[in-house]
Amino acid sequence: MRQAGRYLPEYRAVRAKSDFLTMCRTPELAVEVTLQPLDLVGVDAAIIFSDILVVPEAMGMHLTLDEGIGPQFTSPLRAMADLDRLQPVDPNESLGYMLDAIRLARREINDRVPLIGFAGAPWTLAAYMVEGKGTKQFALAKRMLFEQPTMAHALLDKLATAVGDFLLAQIAAGAQVVQLFESWAGSLGPEEFRAYSLPYLARIAARVRPTGVPLIVFAPGAGWALRDIAEATQAEAVGVDWHSSPRSARALCAGLNVAMQGNLDPCALYASPAEIRRRTHEMIAGFGPIGHVANLGHGILPDVAPAHARAFVDAVKEWRWTEEHLAAAGVSTDATPFSPRPA
Amino acid sequence: MRQAGRYLPEYRAVRAKSDFLTMCRTPELAVEVTLQPLDLVGVDAAIIFSDILVVPEAMGMHLTLDEGIGPQFTSPLRAMADLDRLQPVDPNESLGYMLDAIRLARREINDRVPLIGFAGAPWTLAAYMVEGKGTKQFALAKRMLFEQPTMAHALLDKLATAVGDFLLAQIAAGAQVVQLFESWAGSLGPEEFRAYSLPYLARIAARVRPTGVPLIVFAPGAGWALRDIAEATQAEAVGVDWHSSPRSARALCAGLNVAMQGNLDPCALYASPAEIRRRTHEMIAGFGPIGHVANLGHGILPDVAPAHARAFVDAVKEWRWTEEHLAAAGVSTDATPFSPRPA
Repeated sequence: MRQAGRYLPEYRAVRAKSDFLTMCRTPELAVEVTLQPLDLVGVDAAIIFSDILVVPEAMGMHLTLDEGIGPQFTSPLRAMADLDRLQPVDPNESLGYMLDAIRLARREINDRVPLIGFAGAPWTLAAYMVEGKGTKQFALAKRMLFEQPTMAHALLDKLATAVGDFLLAQIAAGAQVVQLFESWAGSLGPEEFRAYSLPYLARIAARVRPTGVPLIVFAPGAGWALRDIAEATQAEAVGVDWHSSPRSARALCAGLNVAMQGNLDPCALYASPAEIRRRTHEMIAGFGPIGHVANLGHGILPDVAPAHARAFVDAVKEWRWTEEHLAAAGVSTDATPFSPRPA
Repeated sequence: MRQAGRYLPEYRAVRAKSDFLTMCRTPELAVEVTLQPLDLVGVDAAIIFSDILVVPEAMGMHLTLDEGIGPQFTSPLRAMADLDRLQPVDPNESLGYMLDAIRLARREINDRVPLIGFAGAPWTLAAYMVEGKGTKQFALAKRMLFEQPTMAHALLDKLATAVGDFLLAQIAAGAQVVQLFESWAGSLGPEEFRAYSLPYLARIAARVRPTGVPLIVFAPGAGWALRDIAEATQAEAVGVDWHSSPRSARALCAGLNVAMQGNLDPCALYASPAEIRRRTHEMIAGFGPIGHVANLGHGILPDVAPAHARAFVDAVKEWRWTEEHLAAAGVSTDATPFSPRPA
């Protein structure tokens, strides 16, 4: 999450000249900040700069993003009739700017690293559309689930279609990996997660699968659901947030052929570079040698020193598996390399 | 959490005449709202009306509680030297109003139901004291853990002493059960939870244990840590938040002699009374017949209809275990009754 961002002075320089949504909508600016972490921090993948709320906006909801307040929809959805306001999304039209940014980023990256596209998952988008803004408990959105389940499913159905179309368009434009963010998974208990999040994640994943482009599903706050997510979506990778220990995440998914992305606590980047290195190595050892995308377990915080972000990336790159590590991870040294899709 | 509260018109009538902190500090008012849910909703325990932040206040921090903003400390702690400002707490002096409220509540309740006392746990109080207010990520407080671990432990140490003294004073005043709220457990990853929360919970629990008064430890957002909490504190009960399924919570604590409190999603009270009943019974069946305190899995929401809160309580009271339920829960019908302390 948020690989580009306010922690980089170079990002803030771009941001000083235009507002967030203009940056999203202007491919040259979006690509400029997309590429910054490659050189400045040394990451070995790029994620296109955008925002998950561009989909509800493309459906006709008016979005504002004020500094200090966060994203807001001026007319939230509260009743079934409000859904009539939502327009079907043709990504090539209303989200063409992001597809252009992907095309431009691919040209600029010139195959140095892979480019990741992304979208918000239906429940997360629905929660914002009903609340009108981010909240602590999303009680209004959850109230809809309990009081108006038919409205909830109708909204999620529309969103799943739009998000699926959008990810396919991103792939057609050149995204080499796509990630689905169920950022508000943590607002749902097990029964609601299985009713209102998982089926829609699975539906979108089923549309991505035939493209052969790997899918990463990240549902922070629902560490307990990692196995359900991996099974229902058959995604190539699941994101693991910093609440789970790498070993417990692996144990939950034992026997499944799924890679894991994560999961250093973003606050660990406040520690000294030596401590960052220790924790990063502990994390890598914990996930084991097969099928791990080293990453933070949530978005990078805006007041992190870029040198500390770089210490994290350096620690990942310098790591080498020894016989001892492999033995501790329970891996035979002649194990078959990880293959995310069955042959 | 928040058994008394804004969902009751009778509470709002008291609250209209005095501010929240005045209610906490005036035993007659605190007891009035403490008792309301007994008659109005039919719960079979009372929890004394107060706030976890009275302890930092008693240590000398100035607390304001503005409607819509929430609790705030005017001078948050940011450096080691700030800790010198904190005074030792003699609960009989600076927190005497809550002890008086407990004494008065016991008289008024007259043994109809047990009375629960409570306090905030050290990490949660420290997080508020460093941030100055509730925040989404508690990044400042967590930054302290990574940048100034010595300051963190010094602060937590002072808090553990004050909270332990306070719970013992509540017990001396008549509390028949005490509950420790680690409300911000979810802000910590496993390594930080084990370093900065668990040892202090255990220290306080060790002081409560010789009194023989049962202790409930509730650490919402850290469902993964239930077993660690039960083992480290040897508490009679652990609170289970609504993110965990009852069966998974039980499985985590398999073999431990610990009761569980929880865990209906507070948003489930938005559903129809019939659906509330279905979910409540499913929850009870999930926890099984031995060692369960039926409760919500977090604080009741202010816009819940009192009739729906009552539907929850009624559903708990009308539940009867059948042979089929017991068989499904894997319990032999001649099982030994639950005993929270080994004989």
